[in-house]
Amino acid sequence: MSFIYTGSIRTDLALEAHEAIHAKDRLAVSGVDTLTRSTPNTHITKVHISNDQGARRLGKPVGTYITIEAPKLRLGGHSIADEVGQVLAEELLELANLSNEATILVVGLGNWNATPDALGPRVVDSLMVTRHLFEYAPPELRGGLRSVAALAPGVLGLTGVETEEIVRGVVQHIRPDLVIAVDALAARNLQRVSTTVQLADSGIHPGSGVGNKRLGLTEASLGTRVIAIGVPTVVHASTLAADALELFCHTLIKQNAISPSKLQSALPTENQGKLLEQLLPARWEDLFVTPKEIDALIADMAHIVAGGLNAALHPGVDAGEGEHYLQ
Amino acid sequence: MSFIYTGSIRTDLALEAHEAIHAKDRLAVSGVDTLTRSTPNTHITKVHISNDQGARRLGKPVGTYITIEAPKLRLGGHSIADEVGQVLAEELLELANLSNEATILVVGLGNWNATPDALGPRVVDSLMVTRHLFEYAPPELRGGLRSVAALAPGVLGLTGVETEEIVRGVVQHIRPDLVIAVDALAARNLQRVSTTVQLADSGIHPGSGVGNKRLGLTEASLGTRVIAIGVPTVVHASTLAADALELFCHTLIKQNAISPSKLQSALPTENQGKLLEQLLPARWEDLFVTPKEIDALIADMAHIVAGGLNAALHPGVDAGEGEHYLQ
Amino acid sequence: MSFIYTGSIRTDLALEAHEAIHAKDRLAVSGVDTLTRSTPNTHITKVHISNDQGARRLGKPVGTYITIEAPKLRLGGHSIADEVGQVLAEELLELANLSNEATILVVGLGNWNATPDALGPRVVDSLMVTRHLFEYAPPELRGGLRSVAALAPGVLGLTGVETEEIVRGVVQHIRPDLVIAVDALAARNLQRVSTTVQLADSGIHPGSGVGNKRLGLTEASLGTRVIAIGVPTVVHASTLAADALELFCHTLIKQNAISPSKLQSALPTENQGKLLEQLLPARWEDLFVTPKEIDALIADMAHIVAGGLNAALHPGVDAGEGEHYLQ
Amino acid sequence: MSFIYTGSIRTDLALEAHEAIHAKDRLAVSGVDTLTRSTPNTHITKVHISNDQGARRLGKPVGTYITIEAPKLRLGGHSIADEVGQVLAEELLELANLSNEATILVVGLGNWNATPDALGPRVVDSLMVTRHLFEYAPPELRGGLRSVAALAPGVLGLTGVETEEIVRGVVQHIRPDLVIAVDALAARNLQRVSTTVQLADSGIHPGSGVGNKRLGLTEASLGTRVIAIGVPTVVHASTLAADALELFCHTLIKQNAISPSKLQSALPTENQGKLLEQLLPARWEDLFVTPKEIDALIADMAHIVAGGLNAALHPGVDAGEGEHYLQ
Repeated sequence: MSFIYTGSIRTDLALEAHEAIHAKDRLAVSGVDTLTRSTPNTHITKVHISNDQGARRLGKPVGTYITIEAPKLRLGGHSIADEVGQVLAEELLELANLSNEATILVVGLGNWNATPDALGPRVVDSLMVTRHLFEYAPPELRGGLRSVAALAPGVLGLTGVETEEIVRGVVQHIRPDLVIAVDALAARNLQRVSTTVQLADSGIHPGSGVGNKRLGLTEASLGTRVIAIGVPTVVHASTLAADALELFCHTLIKQNAISPSKLQSALPTENQGKLLEQLLPARWEDLFVTPKEIDALIADMAHIVAGGLNAALHPGVDAGEGEHYLQ
Repeated sequence: MSFIYTGSIRTDLALEAHEAIHAKDRLAVSGVDTLTRSTPNTHITKVHISNDQGARRLGKPVGTYITIEAPKLRLGGHSIADEVGQVLAEELLELANLSNEATILVVGLGNWNATPDALGPRVVDSLMVTRHLFEYAPPELRGGLRSVAALAPGVLGLTGVETEEIVRGVVQHIRPDLVIAVDALAARNLQRVSTTVQLADSGIHPGSGVGNKRLGLTEASLGTRVIAIGVPTVVHASTLAADALELFCHTLIKQNAISPSKLQSALPTENQGKLLEQLLPARWEDLFVTPKEIDALIADMAHIVAGGLNAALHPGVDAGEGEHYLQ
Repeated sequence: MSFIYTGSIRTDLALEAHEAIHAKDRLAVSGVDTLTRSTPNTHITKVHISNDQGARRLGKPVGTYITIEAPKLRLGGHSIADEVGQVLAEELLELANLSNEATILVVGLGNWNATPDALGPRVVDSLMVTRHLFEYAPPELRGGLRSVAALAPGVLGLTGVETEEIVRGVVQHIRPDLVIAVDALAARNLQRVSTTVQLADSGIHPGSGVGNKRLGLTEASLGTRVIAIGVPTVVHASTLAADALELFCHTLIKQNAISPSKLQSALPTENQGKLLEQLLPARWEDLFVTPKEIDALIADMAHIVAGGLNAALHPGVDAGEGEHYLQ
Repeated sequence: MSFIYTGSIRTDLALEAHEAIHAKDRLAVSGVDTLTRSTPNTHITKVHISNDQGARRLGKPVGTYITIEAPKLRLGGHSIADEVGQVLAEELLELANLSNEATILVVGLGNWNATPDALGPRVVDSLMVTRHLFEYAPPELRGGLRSVAALAPGVLGLTGVETEEIVRGVVQHIRPDLVIAVDALAARNLQRVSTTVQLADSGIHPGSGVGNKRLGLTEASLGTRVIAIGVPTVVHASTLAADALELFCHTLIKQNAISPSKLQSALPTENQGKLLEQLLPARWEDLFVTPKEIDALIADMAHIVAGGLNAALHPGVDAGEGEHYLQ
């Protein structure tokens, strides 16, 4: 039973959107299939949204969403990190189905100067970029390296140009076979911050991610397949507040201090809205909850994602060696 | 009336500590005096804690705490920013009472790489540093500039050396007349984030600020007067959660859904503790709420504080000109 | 009389190219007109190349090249810097002839991570960007601000995408009335490093600048007028070596140690080439001479250029106020 | 035979100082012993200066100077880099003779903001810092990690405090058993830029390095052993000019254009001084020659040095694994 209006719950993870629906209805969600597998330190869930009904329920476009969870990532040394990088490489290769001659454009979304939003640019900074080397070389001489270009287009406020406009222009000129868009995400659950990676073949949609995406990066808008890779780095403050209130309601009921029906009648959506208004200043478009160690977390996750991308995109690079090629 | 255990409320602003006590007791707090004044766009409050009783009540050491609030700072152009910089310069000069021959060491606390904690290093980066120019010049040739040195000692995790150890070593060698320590702070109220500056003549105390200060920077530890200048850049997530619950309790009572006494008996401190445990993962030492625009806010506030310091520390620099000398 | 092969002299300043020819021939160069004016601390030279003959002689495309020299810039305080910013704004406005409704794209060429090449990105970082604010606002409500977008496309090696490809894509989408390309340049004379600004209406041409420009940014390639703004930050090591040898030859002759004809016969071009090969390792594509203080010089010049651009592009910003709007 | 006054030759490498003397005299230099060894891709020379006579001849203090040269470093992949890191670790361990309980302070000299001088701060940034973890842990629980602290004190102009003052203060507080000072150096020969690492047990001396060291870091000044690790990143412009002239003289003689004696009589030291004055503007304290790719070179060399330090200082880290622990 849920007392607090879940409309206020915001998550970029299809897994969490699915959990929220599933927890409420305890029923399979029509148009949504899930599949899981595990490795020693990771748990992988594929949420496949196959039709509009599923898309509406989960609030995510039709597509495949792969979540790699590694709860021990924050504790462990570099062996867990290597494992996550390797799983990421495997899942990306399966999802992307790339020929050896493919050209890939990696777009690092987000803002260099705001630590929780800096994942994308940092991944781009560590990537093994090869397109400029191959322009005049025949594919057979590429030594197991695919043609990879990378771009960190910055944020709207810094440039006055929408990210989508920059990327669309570049895509039209270099005509890649695949765009991989890397972004920092908002999760619902703080436990998933910097322990989770999501891959999605539906691209980037307006309003998702930590940054200010007013437009999207999708096959429809770019004319090229787009795979999004995201790592949760924040939780919306409104999500945290709503979760606190929900837990509180259950505590009161467990203590027999109030009956469920009485509680529910005291909490119409408009009261909840007023409460949040008092709590969260209107002048902030968005408030985020983020751990103090966010700088180290972002550095670690950028390392893992860039290592996984190097290993996946360049078949000549050994799985365990992706890290060696970090720039 | 307060339902949620205020022990969980954490603020680095003496003003907010005073408000919390005052709101509860509606009485003057013994050992604490306050004084206010205004300029067109700022409101200045001096909280003077004169004895141990006041210090215990407010949870802050004996001393003078000056808060400059400028709620319109986020909306306005550079004229409000200039006004805040000028008020900061005036209040600092009155608090510091510096001779023209004084040597000042400005210490920028915090971590370059974590945006909400980067205020101190950024102020140091923009400061007009002159000590190296004056080493061999007589005071009468300094042209209205005081001898200013600056240091951004980084954070413990980056260096393995406590900030206090670094600063103490430098202080012993350069023997400044005053240490000014600039730091990012945690407020209770989100409205004060990046609209407020606090000056305090009691120095920096362990556990304060956004960073991980295990030791302090005080006259007792350094052998030199210390003035702390702080700007709130975050609110603790636990504060936000507690505030949400408090507001919620009042909403329930206003709706006659539950009586105050019943609510209070359902909420012993241990229940509240369990609730926060479920909500906030134990593995994070600290979780912060911070606006998405934190990079721009930190840049603006660093500009204002550095401009105010340049104008205050260098009498030959015109009030409105402090900004020109930003590095 | 010149002994050392002038083919090795490389400069991005039309002024220096003209000086070199003029010094040799002591005659007006056909197809090239020059015009000078002064302000208290600057000397402004307009070199106008009107036909192909002039272009061939100077090794620069047909167009107008304005050089602002301020030899005292390195010594002076902010008043000389302000004067240079103001002259830059005036000359840019005259050259650009912009309507109030014009949209301008500023492109900061060069590489953030290599200090002597970082001028362009730093200027972009300090610019007053407004295009995103105006997208839905009618021109009459823009309050004296033009629509300005900015882009720092990085360097080829970082992204695998030619700068020209990125810029062309963005230009096609936002269709600006003018592109302003800011770049770090190589001068012939060390005295001009960081004391000089060049404006040119012929755009950016392959091989110019400190960075690795293999393609150009011109009206022909972009379909939009391009004004280039450049500041010399380096001298090629081969230029310095050649200048050292030239001076040496003149010293020997002055000392009557050798006759001009004997010297010349000992120095056919192939000997000079071997000499440089021994001196400058072949594996370096380019070696630069740059002052140790290059970080401070770049910061100062970026400040001046961005301040001048803010004042020129936004008519509502007072001449002396451009600096206030630096980000 | 040398025509150009070698007083103008500046190098921070003892190897090059020795080469210069040795080349001239073709005799053993009294008070100086050398020893060499090789690995597949490196050549290691130990220059041991044993008395004042040797120190005066080489212009370096008494001590041991180990130079690791790897000419193919710029061409090769990560295997040559790994080899250099491993050799560095071996030589450092032999020179340092550390107990497992030793505390080491690594000082990264130089200026973050000037690429050729940024080696020291970048190494510090990538180092595995452990001192803060061990403060309360007994040595037997340290798992093969020594207590390492690190400091990047910045440059004089940024802080107004001499580096030596900061380091001395910190050393007095944390009392390390060894200080390792990492710095960017000036070489005589461009071929050695970013292909060479020097270790020296005589510390850092005034005037050495790329930065502005007015004081030194030595056992005499700090009361602790100091090992300096340096990588050449620049050549002084005056060295390049002098080398150009020297080569030119030999070319003229080879061509029989002038006799050695005539050349020498035309070139008294005062003529050479005037020539350099005309060539190199007096207002620059120092002019450096540096490759355009300096940003990538510094990143690579910082990676190698930090990897070597991690492997040497932490015995529990496998030789090949030092890189994995890069931060």
